Amino acid sequence: MESIRVFDEKDFFACCGSSKFAQEMVLSGPLSNYQQAVDAARDIWFNKVDVNGWLEAFAAHPKIGESPSQKSKSSAFANWSKGEQSTALNTATDSSLQELVEWNARYWQKFGVVFLIFASGRSTPEILGEMKRRYNNRPIVEFEIAAQEQMKIIELRLSKLFSLEADATSKAKSDF
Amino acid sequence: MESIRVFDEKDFFACCGSSKFAQEMVLSGPLSNYQQAVDAARDIWFNKVDVNGWLEAFAAHPKIGESPSQKSKSSAFANWSKGEQSTALNTATDSSLQELVEWNARYWQKFGVVFLIFASGRSTPEILGEMKRRYNNRPIVEFEIAAQEQMKIIELRLSKLFSLEADATSKAKSDF
Repeated sequence: MESIRVFDEKDFFACCGSSKFAQEMVLSGPLSNYQQAVDAARDIWFNKVDVNGWLEAFAAHPKIGESPSQKSKSSAFANWSKGEQSTALNTATDSSLQELVEWNARYWQKFGVVFLIFASGRSTPEILGEMKRRYNNRPIVEFEIAAQEQMKIIELRLSKLFSLEADATSKAKSDF
Repeated sequence: MESIRVFDEKDFFACCGSSKFAQEMVLSGPLSNYQQAVDAARDIWFNKVDVNGWLEAFAAHPKIGESPSQKSKSSAFANWSKGEQSTALNTATDSSLQELVEWNARYWQKFGVVFLIFASGRSTPEILGEMKRRYNNRPIVEFEIAAQEQMKIIELRLSKLFSLEADATSKAKSDF
């Protein structure tokens, strides 16, 4: 039998920095498993969070290649961002990091939002290539791609949330 | 021979309340005729103005069925809005106006932006029908539809700008 996980807004806010997203995730619960959480998240992110909410969520991300801001509203969010960028940071050279900084600025100048990418397991050259390719898109097209990438990030973080919770549960049980 | 019209940011801001749009229109000039202005506007609005600029432009519109705000940044914009809504206002009854107010609120609640429609020549029942139909859309779909409607508004207002200017020119000539 599956146990029912009860998460709060803070947990979901660490998965996606839109307040509406976090609120709606709580309202959709209790969620009995990871797949149910992903289904709810997908519906909420694409159908209920409005464009202001998308912008809020995008703004919660550090620029790719940069450390999460100290001012991040969620420390779990900041730690996860860091972990997801670890491959990129390990494969970065001084010159590719410099190029990333320059393209981040150029991207921001054109689109007015951070470049958002599901970075897990991706090298810096790979990310740079994507950024240069996507730079040619129209702003609204990029906006939708960023939302798709955000959804991948949400899925990854929900899986972390559920496995963390499972670890905690089994630890609690073994304490008896 | 066509004369070259020189318009300033203020003129273009009255056509579309995005500062970037107005700036880029000036940079794309001088515009020798209406069609050239529409082509430039289309390119700027869809390819250069980012999502923040779209939101800025949408926020410049009064809610449909309501008078333009006294705080409007452009009096030409406010007057044109009023003119474009005249059919709607002339065909409105107390109850349909009340319904419009209710649906405006509902729409705002879901999408976080005003309901934007090319209102010229459209009756209140027609506008209400569109609002109810479009209410079912996903936020990103609505956002793109609103941008298309904004483009129609831009075209209409550019035509007003060019004919006003033509009137002024011929008046100036007849004054000789």
